[in-house]
Amino acid sequence: MDSLTWIAVASIVMAGLTTGFGTMGPALAEGRAVSVALTSLAQQPDASATITRTLFVGLAMIESMAIYCFVVSMILIFANPFWNAAIASVAQAAGK
Amino acid sequence: MDSLTWIAVASIVMAGLTTGFGTMGPALAEGRAVSVALTSLAQQPDASATITRTLFVGLAMIESMAIYCFVVSMILIFANPFWNAAIASVAQAAGK
Amino acid sequence: MDSLTWIAVASIVMAGLTTGFGTMGPALAEGRAVSVALTSLAQQPDASATITRTLFVGLAMIESMAIYCFVVSMILIFANPFWNAAIASVAQAAGK
Amino acid sequence: MDSLTWIAVASIVMAGLTTGFGTMGPALAEGRAVSVALTSLAQQPDASATITRTLFVGLAMIESMAIYCFVVSMILIFANPFWNAAIASVAQAAGK
Amino acid sequence: MDSLTWIAVASIVMAGLTTGFGTMGPALAEGRAVSVALTSLAQQPDASATITRTLFVGLAMIESMAIYCFVVSMILIFANPFWNAAIASVAQAAGK
Amino acid sequence: MDSLTWIAVASIVMAGLTTGFGTMGPALAEGRAVSVALTSLAQQPDASATITRTLFVGLAMIESMAIYCFVVSMILIFANPFWNAAIASVAQAAGK
Amino acid sequence: MDSLTWIAVASIVMAGLTTGFGTMGPALAEGRAVSVALTSLAQQPDASATITRTLFVGLAMIESMAIYCFVVSMILIFANPFWNAAIASVAQAAGK
Amino acid sequence: MDSLTWIAVASIVMAGLTTGFGTMGPALAEGRAVSVALTSLAQQPDASATITRTLFVGLAMIESMAIYCFVVSMILIFANPFWNAAIASVAQAAGK
Amino acid sequence: MDSLTWIAVASIVMAGLTTGFGTMGPALAEGRAVSVALTSLAQQPDASATITRTLFVGLAMIESMAIYCFVVSMILIFANPFWNAAIASVAQAAGK
Amino acid sequence: MDSLTWIAVASIVMAGLTTGFGTMGPALAEGRAVSVALTSLAQQPDASATITRTLFVGLAMIESMAIYCFVVSMILIFANPFWNAAIASVAQAAGK
Amino acid sequence: MDSLTWIAVASIVMAGLTTGFGTMGPALAEGRAVSVALTSLAQQPDASATITRTLFVGLAMIESMAIYCFVVSMILIFANPFWNAAIASVAQAAGK
Amino acid sequence: MDSLTWIAVASIVMAGLTTGFGTMGPALAEGRAVSVALTSLAQQPDASATITRTLFVGLAMIESMAIYCFVVSMILIFANPFWNAAIASVAQAAGK
Amino acid sequence: MDSLTWIAVASIVMAGLTTGFGTMGPALAEGRAVSVALTSLAQQPDASATITRTLFVGLAMIESMAIYCFVVSMILIFANPFWNAAIASVAQAAGK
Amino acid sequence: MDSLTWIAVASIVMAGLTTGFGTMGPALAEGRAVSVALTSLAQQPDASATITRTLFVGLAMIESMAIYCFVVSMILIFANPFWNAAIASVAQAAGK
Repeated sequence: MDSLTWIAVASIVMAGLTTGFGTMGPALAEGRAVSVALTSLAQQPDASATITRTLFVGLAMIESMAIYCFVVSMILIFANPFWNAAIASVAQAAGK
Repeated sequence: MDSLTWIAVASIVMAGLTTGFGTMGPALAEGRAVSVALTSLAQQPDASATITRTLFVGLAMIESMAIYCFVVSMILIFANPFWNAAIASVAQAAGK
Repeated sequence: MDSLTWIAVASIVMAGLTTGFGTMGPALAEGRAVSVALTSLAQQPDASATITRTLFVGLAMIESMAIYCFVVSMILIFANPFWNAAIASVAQAAGK
Repeated sequence: MDSLTWIAVASIVMAGLTTGFGTMGPALAEGRAVSVALTSLAQQPDASATITRTLFVGLAMIESMAIYCFVVSMILIFANPFWNAAIASVAQAAGK
Repeated sequence: MDSLTWIAVASIVMAGLTTGFGTMGPALAEGRAVSVALTSLAQQPDASATITRTLFVGLAMIESMAIYCFVVSMILIFANPFWNAAIASVAQAAGK
Repeated sequence: MDSLTWIAVASIVMAGLTTGFGTMGPALAEGRAVSVALTSLAQQPDASATITRTLFVGLAMIESMAIYCFVVSMILIFANPFWNAAIASVAQAAGK
Repeated sequence: MDSLTWIAVASIVMAGLTTGFGTMGPALAEGRAVSVALTSLAQQPDASATITRTLFVGLAMIESMAIYCFVVSMILIFANPFWNAAIASVAQAAGK
Repeated sequence: MDSLTWIAVASIVMAGLTTGFGTMGPALAEGRAVSVALTSLAQQPDASATITRTLFVGLAMIESMAIYCFVVSMILIFANPFWNAAIASVAQAAGK
Repeated sequence: MDSLTWIAVASIVMAGLTTGFGTMGPALAEGRAVSVALTSLAQQPDASATITRTLFVGLAMIESMAIYCFVVSMILIFANPFWNAAIASVAQAAGK
Repeated sequence: MDSLTWIAVASIVMAGLTTGFGTMGPALAEGRAVSVALTSLAQQPDASATITRTLFVGLAMIESMAIYCFVVSMILIFANPFWNAAIASVAQAAGK
Repeated sequence: MDSLTWIAVASIVMAGLTTGFGTMGPALAEGRAVSVALTSLAQQPDASATITRTLFVGLAMIESMAIYCFVVSMILIFANPFWNAAIASVAQAAGK
Repeated sequence: MDSLTWIAVASIVMAGLTTGFGTMGPALAEGRAVSVALTSLAQQPDASATITRTLFVGLAMIESMAIYCFVVSMILIFANPFWNAAIASVAQAAGK
Repeated sequence: MDSLTWIAVASIVMAGLTTGFGTMGPALAEGRAVSVALTSLAQQPDASATITRTLFVGLAMIESMAIYCFVVSMILIFANPFWNAAIASVAQAAGK
Repeated sequence: MDSLTWIAVASIVMAGLTTGFGTMGPALAEGRAVSVALTSLAQQPDASATITRTLFVGLAMIESMAIYCFVVSMILIFANPFWNAAIASVAQAAGK
């Protein structure tokens, strides 16, 4: 197994793990926030404007963390500096 | 085991893991959101419009995370840049 | 153990794991949703139309995740691009 | 250990795991749904028709997941494409 | 360790695991269902016919999963196609 | 370590594990069922006939799972087809 | 490490594990049953005959599982067929 | 590491584990039973005779499991048939 | 596997893990904070100014921890001093 | 690593583990029993004689399990029959 | 793998782990503190000055622990004495 | 690694583990007991003499387990019979 | 890998682990203490002096444990006696 | 890796683990005790003298366990008899 393969395998594994497991926390957190919003709406329908607004701000902040994970996965697959360096070094060796 | 095989195995394993485990969080979160929506509907049937609307926005945001996972799996199976690079390098070696 | 065997073993293992474990989250979530629907029906029988409708939308969204897992398993068993590539390469080597 | 053996062992192991563990989620979910149905029946005997109907729809959807797992196990034992390919390749080698 | 032994060991291990662990989920689920049935009977003795009927349908569906596990164990011990194939291949080699 | 030893060791290990761990689920489930039966009896002594009957049916169904595990252990120790096949093959080799 | 030693070590390890861990489930279950019996007695002293009778039946069924585990341990230590077969085979080899 | 040493090490390890972990379940169960007995006594001092009697029967049955574990440990340390057989075989070899 | 590859693989793995798992705690914490804010708003709409202000300060402090994790990931991918030192040392060796 | 060392290491490890982990269950159980005794005393000061007596009997039975663990540790350190046998066999070898 | 690489890899791994996991405790703790502050504000708006002050002191103390973790990570990446010593020793060897 | 080193390493590791983990159970138990004592004091200040006395007896019994762990650690570090035997045997070998 | 490197790697790993995980317990404990303080303040604003004083004493004692962990980490990084001894021994060897 | 290094590494690892994990139990226990003390103070401000006194005694006893852990860590780092013996033996070997 040469260097290129090791880097490719590590990138594939981490891209999957980061997205696959990293969305668990935000998903549960959003599920909780949405649930409580629904309870609050049923309990106090008059405050629905404030509740909805606060809910969306909160969901946005929680969603931001899932997006960090997705961004790291995408960087690892499509813009991986270690892979680029390894490819360049192989090309350089071949061009000699 | 050559490089191609390693990359293929890693892609297969992570495609399965990412979808298989990555849907656990969103599934539980949606189950919770739906449950609470049903309780709220039973408790306050008059607010059903607001509750249903908020529920669907929430489900959409949670579902988005399961879709991130599914997308990463599909990328790993059908549009894997590391696999393409390895195939190209093998073809190039054979074409020499 | 040659390349074909490694890919076959990895596909078998992940097909089982993805379906076997990936249905745990949706199953628990559906169990929760159904339970709460029953409680709500017992508590507010008049709202049964709204409750049933919301329940079925929710179950459909949760079931979709179990189906993602099943689809990934089926792709790994019956439409695995890595396996096809490996078979083709073996056939090509034999045809030379 | 040759290729055939590896594939056989992997199939045996995953057939057992997929059924053995994959029924845990649905079993717990059905246990919960049945329990709540019984509570609801005791609490609101008049709504027993609606409750029973909703319960059976729910149980059917949850049972479907256990059946996905059982189907994957049966495919791995009795209709395994990788095993068939390996057997065919061995027969072909012997027939040469 | 030859092929026959590997297959035998894997079958023994999975037969035990599948039954040993696969009955945990159904057992807990049945325990829950029975418990709630008893509570409901104590609370609403008049509905005992409906409660008992629903309980038995539920227990049957949950028991079905434990039986899937037991069936897979028995198939692995007494009707294992991989073992049969391996035995046949050994006999064929000896008969040559 | 020859084939016979491997099969013996695997059988011993799985016989212990299957009984040792497989009784945990049923034991907890029976503990729960019995506990709730006692609570129900204390709460509604008049329904003791129905409660006791339902409890015994439930305990029988749960106990059946512990017995599946015990049966598998006994099969692995005293009626193991793989062990018999291995013993037969050794005897045959010695009788040649 | 010869065959005899492997079988002895496996038997020792599983005898300990089966009893050591297999009593955890029954112990917790009995603790629960006894606790609830005490609560019920304090709450409804008049029903003490029925409660005590039901408790003893329940304890007997739960204790039966701990005894399965103990029996398996004793079989593994004092009536192990694999050990006997191995001892016999060694004696036979020595007697030749 | 010869056979004797392996058997000795395995016996030492399992003697410790069986007692060390096997007392956890009974200890927790007894703690629960005693706690509930104290609550019941505080709540219904008049029934103290029945409560104390039931408590002692329950403690005896739970303690019996801790004693199974201790007995297995003592057998493994002081009356281990595998160790005796190994010692005898060594002595026999030396006496030749 | 040379030094460069080891450092690249370790950086890829930790970048993924740090972001993927490090966002779990903050996500759950924000989910909790948002949920309670919604409950409080529904319960005391008059105090919405104070509640919203305190919520945003709290979210900012919790978010700061997710950002620590993301920063560490970015440093490991794009400004890794160990990688730079290794690259420099390789370049120096090549320039000699 | 000779036999003596293996036995010494195993004894040291198990002596620590048995006491270190084996006291966890009894400690938690005693903590629970003491806590409930305090609650009961505060709730029913008149029954303090009965409560205290029952508490001490219970503590004694729970403490007995911690003492089993400590005894096993001490046996393993100071009265280990395997160690004595090994020492004797070394001395005998040296005395020849 | 030479010494420099080992130290680099260990530093990278621990820098990620320390920040990635070390923020979990403080994050959950802050989430709890903020949640309770919001509940208290909704319940007793008059005490908002005292509540807010106590909250900020508490958040500061909890945040301090997350900062310990971040500081250790930064020390490991940018001011690692072991790395500096290793670099110096390599430079010294090269300068000889 | 010679015998002395193995014994030293094992003793160091177990001394740390026994104290480090073995204090967890007693610490949690004491925390529980103290907490409940405080609640009881606040609820029934008149019974403070009985409560305090019972608390101290309980704390003493729980503390005794932490002290068992500490004693085992100290024995392993400062009065380890296996280490003494090994040292003596080395000295004897050197003195020959 | 020579001695120096092993000691450096171990020190780096433990410095990170000790701080990274060791702050989890204190963080959760402080979060709990602060939360309860806020609830108490909202419930009994008149006792704020006593509550605040007790809170700060408690936080100080809990913080002390996080500081023990940080101190151990700092000792391992900057005042490690084993590292110093190893450096000294290397210098002495070089100076010979 | 020679003996000195093994002992150094083991001491470093255990010093970190003992303090890092061993403070978790006491920290959580103190957090609980402080929390309950605050609740009790808010509920019964008149008993503050007794509550505070009992709290401090309890904290002292819990803190004592954290201090055991810290003491063991310090002994392992600065007064390790195994390290001293190893150093002495090396010095003796060098002085010969």
